[in-house]
Amino acid sequence: MYFFHNDYNEACHTAVLSKMAEGKSPMPGYGMDQSCANAARLIREKCNNDNLSVHFLVGGTQTNMTVIASALRPHQAVIAADSGHIHVHETGAIEATGHKIIALPHADGKITPAQVEEAYLAQSLSADAEHIAQPKMVYISNPTEFGTTYSLKELTALSDMCAKHKLYLFVDGARLGYALASQGYDLTLEDMAQLTDVFYIGGTKCGALFGEAVVIRSPAIAEDFRYMIKQRGGMLAKGWLLGQQFEALLEDDLYFTICRQADMLADKLRQTVTELGCKVVCPNKTNQVFVTLPDRILKELGKEFTFAVWGKEPADETTVRFCTSWATQPESVDALCAALKKLVMEERGESFV
Amino acid sequence: MYFFHNDYNEACHTAVLSKMAEGKSPMPGYGMDQSCANAARLIREKCNNDNLSVHFLVGGTQTNMTVIASALRPHQAVIAADSGHIHVHETGAIEATGHKIIALPHADGKITPAQVEEAYLAQSLSADAEHIAQPKMVYISNPTEFGTTYSLKELTALSDMCAKHKLYLFVDGARLGYALASQGYDLTLEDMAQLTDVFYIGGTKCGALFGEAVVIRSPAIAEDFRYMIKQRGGMLAKGWLLGQQFEALLEDDLYFTICRQADMLADKLRQTVTELGCKVVCPNKTNQVFVTLPDRILKELGKEFTFAVWGKEPADETTVRFCTSWATQPESVDALCAALKKLVMEERGESFV
Amino acid sequence: MYFFHNDYNEACHTAVLSKMAEGKSPMPGYGMDQSCANAARLIREKCNNDNLSVHFLVGGTQTNMTVIASALRPHQAVIAADSGHIHVHETGAIEATGHKIIALPHADGKITPAQVEEAYLAQSLSADAEHIAQPKMVYISNPTEFGTTYSLKELTALSDMCAKHKLYLFVDGARLGYALASQGYDLTLEDMAQLTDVFYIGGTKCGALFGEAVVIRSPAIAEDFRYMIKQRGGMLAKGWLLGQQFEALLEDDLYFTICRQADMLADKLRQTVTELGCKVVCPNKTNQVFVTLPDRILKELGKEFTFAVWGKEPADETTVRFCTSWATQPESVDALCAALKKLVMEERGESFV
Amino acid sequence: MYFFHNDYNEACHTAVLSKMAEGKSPMPGYGMDQSCANAARLIREKCNNDNLSVHFLVGGTQTNMTVIASALRPHQAVIAADSGHIHVHETGAIEATGHKIIALPHADGKITPAQVEEAYLAQSLSADAEHIAQPKMVYISNPTEFGTTYSLKELTALSDMCAKHKLYLFVDGARLGYALASQGYDLTLEDMAQLTDVFYIGGTKCGALFGEAVVIRSPAIAEDFRYMIKQRGGMLAKGWLLGQQFEALLEDDLYFTICRQADMLADKLRQTVTELGCKVVCPNKTNQVFVTLPDRILKELGKEFTFAVWGKEPADETTVRFCTSWATQPESVDALCAALKKLVMEERGESFV
Repeated sequence: MYFFHNDYNEACHTAVLSKMAEGKSPMPGYGMDQSCANAARLIREKCNNDNLSVHFLVGGTQTNMTVIASALRPHQAVIAADSGHIHVHETGAIEATGHKIIALPHADGKITPAQVEEAYLAQSLSADAEHIAQPKMVYISNPTEFGTTYSLKELTALSDMCAKHKLYLFVDGARLGYALASQGYDLTLEDMAQLTDVFYIGGTKCGALFGEAVVIRSPAIAEDFRYMIKQRGGMLAKGWLLGQQFEALLEDDLYFTICRQADMLADKLRQTVTELGCKVVCPNKTNQVFVTLPDRILKELGKEFTFAVWGKEPADETTVRFCTSWATQPESVDALCAALKKLVMEERGESFV
Repeated sequence: MYFFHNDYNEACHTAVLSKMAEGKSPMPGYGMDQSCANAARLIREKCNNDNLSVHFLVGGTQTNMTVIASALRPHQAVIAADSGHIHVHETGAIEATGHKIIALPHADGKITPAQVEEAYLAQSLSADAEHIAQPKMVYISNPTEFGTTYSLKELTALSDMCAKHKLYLFVDGARLGYALASQGYDLTLEDMAQLTDVFYIGGTKCGALFGEAVVIRSPAIAEDFRYMIKQRGGMLAKGWLLGQQFEALLEDDLYFTICRQADMLADKLRQTVTELGCKVVCPNKTNQVFVTLPDRILKELGKEFTFAVWGKEPADETTVRFCTSWATQPESVDALCAALKKLVMEERGESFV
Repeated sequence: MYFFHNDYNEACHTAVLSKMAEGKSPMPGYGMDQSCANAARLIREKCNNDNLSVHFLVGGTQTNMTVIASALRPHQAVIAADSGHIHVHETGAIEATGHKIIALPHADGKITPAQVEEAYLAQSLSADAEHIAQPKMVYISNPTEFGTTYSLKELTALSDMCAKHKLYLFVDGARLGYALASQGYDLTLEDMAQLTDVFYIGGTKCGALFGEAVVIRSPAIAEDFRYMIKQRGGMLAKGWLLGQQFEALLEDDLYFTICRQADMLADKLRQTVTELGCKVVCPNKTNQVFVTLPDRILKELGKEFTFAVWGKEPADETTVRFCTSWATQPESVDALCAALKKLVMEERGESFV
Repeated sequence: MYFFHNDYNEACHTAVLSKMAEGKSPMPGYGMDQSCANAARLIREKCNNDNLSVHFLVGGTQTNMTVIASALRPHQAVIAADSGHIHVHETGAIEATGHKIIALPHADGKITPAQVEEAYLAQSLSADAEHIAQPKMVYISNPTEFGTTYSLKELTALSDMCAKHKLYLFVDGARLGYALASQGYDLTLEDMAQLTDVFYIGGTKCGALFGEAVVIRSPAIAEDFRYMIKQRGGMLAKGWLLGQQFEALLEDDLYFTICRQADMLADKLRQTVTELGCKVVCPNKTNQVFVTLPDRILKELGKEFTFAVWGKEPADETTVRFCTSWATQPESVDALCAALKKLVMEERGESFV
């Protein structure tokens, strides 16, 4: 069986394990150790900003709710795409911290500065403004839940719009590595740190066992952030486990190397699918490949390959997601491409050579 | 100046004031008085159900958040129209109690059983159900924020759908009187009590100084409801003020009489507008009249009449709301109709006789 | 029957009713009316500070939770006496907004600057500070739940201590009139406004039907405070009802006049009880009189007078509270004093003349 | 340097690492894997109850807040010792879920059934019951934060009292292994599962890298518990990491073996200290040793050994905590005993042989 179901179904890169194995106990608890300090320093260096506040949390939902709870007053809301992870996939975790999500229609997972401004003005200019939750933060994912990315120009425009209306810009980077390492991508970690108020560098899906590195530029959000982590249940007793993993990922840019491989394998799959004349949905350059295929083909394919069902389409077709990861073997993608080729051609009554 | 801006800009009906003036202090506090008991009894009688749990709160947002907080566990969500008061006009009060609102597209303020089922199944059948806030309650307003109403058949269908999926049905009746008293309406207070798990009889907009009477059929929601009222800041020290007002409104069916008059005046306005060939938006039989008119006419009209701006339309037109209430004088509506006639005909270059 | 059970069991002073009756509808809703503006102006004048942010809410619990929610970030806590209303009598309303109450042992309802500093340092100096809720506000009641008051010197000392550690000082003034009007009291409304970050002038227990006037000096707490009121369910649609009541209470200092009478009647009762040799508990000069009496006397007394049971004492005695109010008649207190005299003397076998 | 500062400053037992290394990726995410299923089965077997709902979370605060949020309605409170971890050491995490903690004075970290009943009745019998947060759960730690334990008889009595008043009994077992393995302890895992509604088996401090196994007997708390975990940010993407660790700890009773060693080493230290005539505070049989020692001795000792300062005592003495763990070497304890002996005797002017 070949696995393309998700990018968090493998343990971690061997370099991460090695770094953890090297660790010399006893260690100070709660992230006050040397590995966390070192990993934070590496991040500040790569972001070229000594003033960034860097913290390590265990998972994405935890990170999202902690950041948002730290940033907003009770009557304030966060703007997000209606496909955003916080809106559709966190069991109401943000609302459980007391905050409304203002969901905007997405285009391939993305929202635009114009949409943000419209949502902002709809409240702030309303005669009943005080009766409407006040937008104060914009949440986007990069890459999005559809694998698409914000270009430097797009993120700059969004950042400018946020600044114009004093909205925080928060980027969920659960899969950030797959964006930064994608072919032709023009946005860097340093840009991320300059253009956002807070973002995170996802570890769980990008080579670590677990862990997300939060990078905060806004002093207001950074203030007492460790209290917030503790209160939301995110302060790992053995916090060095997080520091070590990010040390391993950031030294020698391993993070980018392994994500680039995943992206290239996804590119290969996308190319194959395109050449076969199948429909690639939400075209992108990161590790998620969305394709619409006949159900009959998928049934066959499912015997040897795992993938995620994204949505039923008309005429006995279904859109599915194939996900590569840092752990995906080139051979697996080759096998998948070959199988697809064979099945598609058979479907068309062509002979498969 | 004639006022059609809203239905909560007048104090209260004289019968309500008289009843309050009759009250003999001292009274037991916190709603444990004879007036509250009597008003609750009247409501149970009219609903023909001795087991209903009846409580009196001060305002609508307070009532909505208290009911929802009492009904849901933390991971549960409430389904509502995206035009619903809780979604757009309560400064995030429901999210501040920790609950997500699942907003569905409305048609003239209403949602359908099919929509509810779709939203329910989208979560419950999802492979990731546990990652999605769980729908557990359906919130509707009757009349809606657009003045439209649910017929007996419609509410029965919604109630059946809720029962099918074990969803609570909660009806915001801030303007309930204007529905129940509207011409040809086939739904009664007794139906409301049978078809819903909890609803409220709005006082603030229907003749009282303030006050909403919550009627709970579901034992789970009713349990410890007074604790919930107290915790959410809704337990009025001098609770008899609420009981007295509902006594006055319910004795001799004053509530229905005064709401009927408001509805009839609104009907008259709608008829006039229709005869003038102007566009009535969200046609309904209750006290809110939505009309699209040329901006030039509205500018003139605004010198003598107040109304609420609902939304800009193309071609220099605007949709506005005229709201009648228990306090609206027939003469005011006559004046409004006459003014509209005159302005519309002038606009068309016709002479006004 | 004579009523000394509480100070919120009578409707309101006639001047308040008259002012409400004078009101000319229609009025703008939600407290944007002239009466609210005028009442706020009166308060600013009496506080001699044009920059105060003044708001009118319906009840005490609602006010407490709204102020605290507006002031604190999620990890911050409020210090209070363990007898404080927010700690013991609000069904966990403050915790329901997400904040811990750090309860300190009270002395007759009061806490000291030294206690506050100790609580503050216990957290801030702890090696585990981030694991402990961070004190950020001090809540006191004046008068306290035991009728005692903070002198100018005491409140100044508390205010200085709060300023020293950047803690907000919040005074619950549900019965503030009974403090300010008490014999020999040296603290004024102006002092309150200078020494606190936020306090409120209680209406419900001091002559109004309902209503609390929040006075905010801290810009951080004042920011977007109306959003907070709306979100917490405290924004009265017909807000002018609150403005009118405070206009009536503040014009000609009615608030102080009627509270002074209640205090004097309480003084008379205290003097009688003291002369009879009975034990006055928590001696104070405001409208609450706590006395320990033999159960046998209380049983007799209860046939004609209501009072609140405060606590069982050893040897068949009970401490009870007699509460006067703006509505208490001198004759009622005379009757109570006479009855007490008679019963106490009979108990002692003395003849009652 | 020898480390006795805490029991979470070492990574994990080698058997745990081995089990994790054996794991064959890819694995299903979110705890739906075979290791979690197997670990849950092992726990049900040891508890001799097939109906237990077992879940694995990452850390203690996260577990406490998730369990409590799942169990209580908004107006309900949890009773705890005033030394309880949730009350003093979780940055207000429980209040942040909306619930009040009713803190009772502890005796060596423990509370009694009589205290629980008193707290319960204080609310339920109050004339103002609805104004007071309603006790619905009792939280204890076993062992407590002072290393003391509840005997079978004590836990049975507490359980009976909880049942009597329909209170949930929740046991924080962050260090449970050190209780169960302590010399002469008469309470088993099976007893825990029978006597409580929910408890957890702590991994983080007892041999795991991280992880707490929640064991739920109450169907009401168990319902939709995975939703609660997800919403509170506790659902680990690579959940098999938790399952594997508990498999390793529970197979062959490793959990008990390694905790027993820690307890025995602590016993040895306690015996030495006692023989030296020093004061052991909160005597217990688990892995935490509290001793009061002269500051001069502690200063010397601190050069070679780490420990936690518990509290200043009069006369230049301090109470400190020495903590053994599954990772403590016998040689380290020998060294500590020898050093203590030497320093104490020198202090007394005796010669050290």
